[in-house]
Amino acid sequence: MENKLVEKFDNYIKEHKYTNRSEAIRDIIRKSFVEEEWKEKKEITGAIVLVYNHHTRQLPSKLLDIQHNFYKFIISVQHIHLDNDNCLEILAVKGKTENIKDLFNTLKSTKGIKYCELTKATTGKEII
Amino acid sequence: MENKLVEKFDNYIKEHKYTNRSEAIRDIIRKSFVEEEWKEKKEITGAIVLVYNHHTRQLPSKLLDIQHNFYKFIISVQHIHLDNDNCLEILAVKGKTENIKDLFNTLKSTKGIKYCELTKATTGKEII
Amino acid sequence: MENKLVEKFDNYIKEHKYTNRSEAIRDIIRKSFVEEEWKEKKEITGAIVLVYNHHTRQLPSKLLDIQHNFYKFIISVQHIHLDNDNCLEILAVKGKTENIKDLFNTLKSTKGIKYCELTKATTGKEII
Amino acid sequence: MENKLVEKFDNYIKEHKYTNRSEAIRDIIRKSFVEEEWKEKKEITGAIVLVYNHHTRQLPSKLLDIQHNFYKFIISVQHIHLDNDNCLEILAVKGKTENIKDLFNTLKSTKGIKYCELTKATTGKEII
Repeated sequence: MENKLVEKFDNYIKEHKYTNRSEAIRDIIRKSFVEEEWKEKKEITGAIVLVYNHHTRQLPSKLLDIQHNFYKFIISVQHIHLDNDNCLEILAVKGKTENIKDLFNTLKSTKGIKYCELTKATTGKEII
Repeated sequence: MENKLVEKFDNYIKEHKYTNRSEAIRDIIRKSFVEEEWKEKKEITGAIVLVYNHHTRQLPSKLLDIQHNFYKFIISVQHIHLDNDNCLEILAVKGKTENIKDLFNTLKSTKGIKYCELTKATTGKEII
Repeated sequence: MENKLVEKFDNYIKEHKYTNRSEAIRDIIRKSFVEEEWKEKKEITGAIVLVYNHHTRQLPSKLLDIQHNFYKFIISVQHIHLDNDNCLEILAVKGKTENIKDLFNTLKSTKGIKYCELTKATTGKEII
Repeated sequence: MENKLVEKFDNYIKEHKYTNRSEAIRDIIRKSFVEEEWKEKKEITGAIVLVYNHHTRQLPSKLLDIQHNFYKFIISVQHIHLDNDNCLEILAVKGKTENIKDLFNTLKSTKGIKYCELTKATTGKEII
């Protein structure tokens, strides 16, 4: 690698608190594998994170309706009552990429949602 | 111990799959400690298990309202979409016994609930 | 019902914070249905609650080994780090009664466990 | 907006399944608010997603040690036994950004981890 690239990479390592270069490289390679799994429409896992005010009219029942329509792809939901109004909800999901994306897009475009994000993970089967 | 009691206890051990007597005795003693903690109004932990049909009118928002009123005693909620209709909800709770019982009784007497049970556990602090 | 029984039942209702008699009766009837489901070896759900010190030698990996042997019956696990030492772990389980009981007995008899309890719930399918 | 930008934005809307433009704009604005919260070192929430093989020597106990060191920032952990080997673990976190990042970096650089990602969310308090 060129000196400049090595330097930049070493900064990246320091910033992300890797203990050495090979560890950082392993992590980056694995991440690219996970991205491939999502593109290849294999079975993947992931997490959908939601934040919303449960007092918003009809929102809790709408979210439950959506989630039950996709219940085969939702392993379980972790729900935290942050305060009197706000909920943090994390869906552990597993299925084909298209189903997970479909669920994510439907949740995201529900009126009243404050935050909705999808983390693309893996079943771990093809990563050593 | 009398022979008859020993015999009965050995049956109990076999039935509950303890590997030996001392293990069974340890388990029973610990359980009685936990019961004491609940009586002494110390800080305890527990799990409230709910089953309900989310299509029941107003039920999801009622349950969320109740839970947010008690949000300081609910660490997090594990929600499983069992099928198109039924939800399994497990609340991990922590607080004074009276608060937890209050929450439990309020949930239990909500119209439409199919099942509601409280498991009384411990913070583990006083059990070695 | 006899007067004495009614009186006792009314005390029970007050103590358990039911808002009226029919609600209490509904709850008791449903509970007996759930007990039947467990006896009839149908598919049931439940929660296994564990408390343990994660510093106990080999305990975390032993518990993970057991749980992975039964992974088809464990929907998901809610794990709470109570303090520097103690863990509260709640397994949401689903399967035949014998499998769930087998898992429960194996966990319960693991050395070092401070608390282990099983709450017998339902899939809700046969309860209206 | 220029025609070309509008066109590109409309494609973005279609691709991400927003039902109309204002919905997409709301979502983008909120996301930028969340990013600000993370920069301003306020109290935030988030999710850390891990995938690992629990048979990896010492890995489960290492992960538990790390998590207990940060237990004040971990609300609860959702653990799914994906198969005989692989675990999906989702930590619901809450705290100052520096603490959450510190926890994330420590977990990420643990040897044997197959996947580790952080989703930056919000307490919802400052988002309407």
